[in-house]
Amino acid sequence: MGITAVGSIAFDSVATPFGVRDRMLGGAATHFALGASLFDEVRVVGVVGDDFGEGEFELLQTRGTNVDDVARVPGGRTFFWRGEYGWDLNSRESLDTQLNVFEHFAPELSRVSCECDVLFLANIQPGLQLDVRRQCPGARFVALDSMNLWIDVARDQLVEVMQSVDCVLLNDAELRQLTAKPSLAAAAKEVLSMGPSVVVAKQGEYGACLFTRDGFFGLPAYPLETVIDPTGAGDTFAGGFLGHIAAHREEPISHDLLRQAMAHATTVASFNVEEFGTDRLVRLTCGEVEDRVRELQRMTGFELRPTSFRGSVSVLAR
Amino acid sequence: MGITAVGSIAFDSVATPFGVRDRMLGGAATHFALGASLFDEVRVVGVVGDDFGEGEFELLQTRGTNVDDVARVPGGRTFFWRGEYGWDLNSRESLDTQLNVFEHFAPELSRVSCECDVLFLANIQPGLQLDVRRQCPGARFVALDSMNLWIDVARDQLVEVMQSVDCVLLNDAELRQLTAKPSLAAAAKEVLSMGPSVVVAKQGEYGACLFTRDGFFGLPAYPLETVIDPTGAGDTFAGGFLGHIAAHREEPISHDLLRQAMAHATTVASFNVEEFGTDRLVRLTCGEVEDRVRELQRMTGFELRPTSFRGSVSVLAR
Repeated sequence: MGITAVGSIAFDSVATPFGVRDRMLGGAATHFALGASLFDEVRVVGVVGDDFGEGEFELLQTRGTNVDDVARVPGGRTFFWRGEYGWDLNSRESLDTQLNVFEHFAPELSRVSCECDVLFLANIQPGLQLDVRRQCPGARFVALDSMNLWIDVARDQLVEVMQSVDCVLLNDAELRQLTAKPSLAAAAKEVLSMGPSVVVAKQGEYGACLFTRDGFFGLPAYPLETVIDPTGAGDTFAGGFLGHIAAHREEPISHDLLRQAMAHATTVASFNVEEFGTDRLVRLTCGEVEDRVRELQRMTGFELRPTSFRGSVSVLAR
Repeated sequence: MGITAVGSIAFDSVATPFGVRDRMLGGAATHFALGASLFDEVRVVGVVGDDFGEGEFELLQTRGTNVDDVARVPGGRTFFWRGEYGWDLNSRESLDTQLNVFEHFAPELSRVSCECDVLFLANIQPGLQLDVRRQCPGARFVALDSMNLWIDVARDQLVEVMQSVDCVLLNDAELRQLTAKPSLAAAAKEVLSMGPSVVVAKQGEYGACLFTRDGFFGLPAYPLETVIDPTGAGDTFAGGFLGHIAAHREEPISHDLLRQAMAHATTVASFNVEEFGTDRLVRLTCGEVEDRVRELQRMTGFELRPTSFRGSVSVLAR
C-alpha cells in the first residue's frame, strides 16, 4: 500500500539572489515526500545523524509521512550540502558536500515499506537502488532518479537497475550523457529500449516531457514571476508524478494517466520553488494544487479549426 | 495586402555533427519567407551582391515570394556567415561574418510593400526597423526580432521601435538581457508594459511560449530524433507565426488565434531543422504542416478528471 521512497535526507544551506538560508531541512526523499504526501501515504527510508532534531522529524512527517524506516545513527551527523545559485537560478555551484552518515547508507526496509504500491528510488548509488528494488517485488510502479556522478562511475550498475524499473526520471542533460545521443528523443528511445516503459525528461524552467512506446507528451513549466529557491524541484516533481499514479491504484498506467501525473508533478514543483526549502510545501493544500493544475491546463493545448493555407481549402475544413 | 519582411539575405556555410555545407542560401528574411509563404503572399525587402545568382533568386521566390524590393548592389558581395554547431546543436560558434552589402543596407520599400497587412522586422539595426515601421502605418500586425548585439549597443533605439510594434519575438536569454530580469515571466511582463501586446519567447529545442496581457501559452518543440541544422529555425518560426495571423485577416488577434499561430510556427520550424539550410522548407507542403500540427496537438494538452487526493473527495468531482 502507498508509496515508499528511498533517498537522501539532508541539511541544505542555500544562497540565491533572493537570500541566504542555513541548514534547512532538505534532501531528495524529503522533497519527494512533501509532494507525494498530498496524494497518498508515504514511507521514507533514509538515514540521519544526532543533529537531526524533533523539529526536522516533525517537518518530514508533514501530512502523515511515516519515518519508521529513517535510521538515526548515534554520534553521526546528517548529510549536509551548501550551494549557491546564479543570477537567473539556472546555474548552481556546490560549495560544500558532507555525506556524513549518508556515505554508508544501507537502506533497511520494514515489511510494510516493502509492500508498497509505488516505489521511488531517489538519486543514490545504483547498487543500493537495485537492492531496494529487489526487496519490493510486488510494487505496481517503480521509478528511479539518478545523476551525472553515477553515469560516470557506475554506468553498468545504473543500466542494470534501469532494466528493473518502470520509469526513469532524469534531466535532459543526464539522458544525453547516459546514452551519448545528442537528441533527447533519440536518448529517450534508447532508455525505453533498456526496459522502462516511461521516460520523463526534466527540463527545469522549460518544463518536462514524457516518452513512452506509444507517444510523447510535452508540458511547459508553470510560469512564475519569482522563483526563490529551485532546490528540490526535481524531487517534488517526482513526488507529484508518482503521487498521482499511486492515488489511482485501480487504474492501468495509461498515457492519459501519465499526462495527468505530469501536470500534477509540474504544479507541485512550481509551488516548491516559490519559497526557500520546504517552506511552501509544508503548507500546500490539495485545493491549491487543483486550482493551479486547472490553470496549467488552460495555459497549454490549443484548438484547431479550418485554417486557410494559400490558394486551397484546408483539409481540416473538409 | 499580404506580408512584408525586411531582413538579411545571406550565404551560410554551416558545419554540424551531421555534415558541412558551403554557401547555402540563408538569412533571416529568406527563412522567414519560406515559412510564411505557406500561408500568405510574402514580399521580401533586402539587399544582395553580384554573387547572388539566378538559382538563389529562384529559391527565394519559392511559393511566389516577391523579390521586387531586393536590391542588387553592382560590384558588391552578399552577406556571408560561417558557423559551427556543437555536439547537441545547442551551442554554436560564429567563425566568420562578412556583412558586405548588408553593412550599408537601407531598406527601400515599394508602395505595395508599405501597404502590407502584416509586417515582420527581422533582426536588423533598430533604427532601420523604426524607419521601415513608419513607412507601413496601415499594417494590422507588426512584429520584430532582434539580438544581443542591439541590446548591447542600441538599447534605447530598440526600446523605441518596440514601443511601435504589436509583437516582440526574442529568445529567452535576450528577453532577460533586455530587461535585466532573471525570470522570463517578469521579463515578458516588462516588455508588454513597453507597448507590444504580444511577447513570444523562443526557447530552441525546448519550444516557445507566448505572453499577452490576458494570459500565457506554452508549447514544447515538436520532438525530433534527428536535427540536422538549426540555422534559421527562429526565423522560420516567425514565418509560421505571422503567416498564420496573415491568413486570418478577417479575425481579431485573439488569444486563440495566437495559440494556433504558435502551433503552426513550432511545426514549420520543426521541418526547417530536419535538413540543411532551406532544403526541407522549399518542398514543404501545407498538407505536411497540417498533419504535424495535429500531431503536435495530440502531444500537448491533457484532460482533467475527478482526481483523488488523500482523505477527501476532490473539488473536481463535485
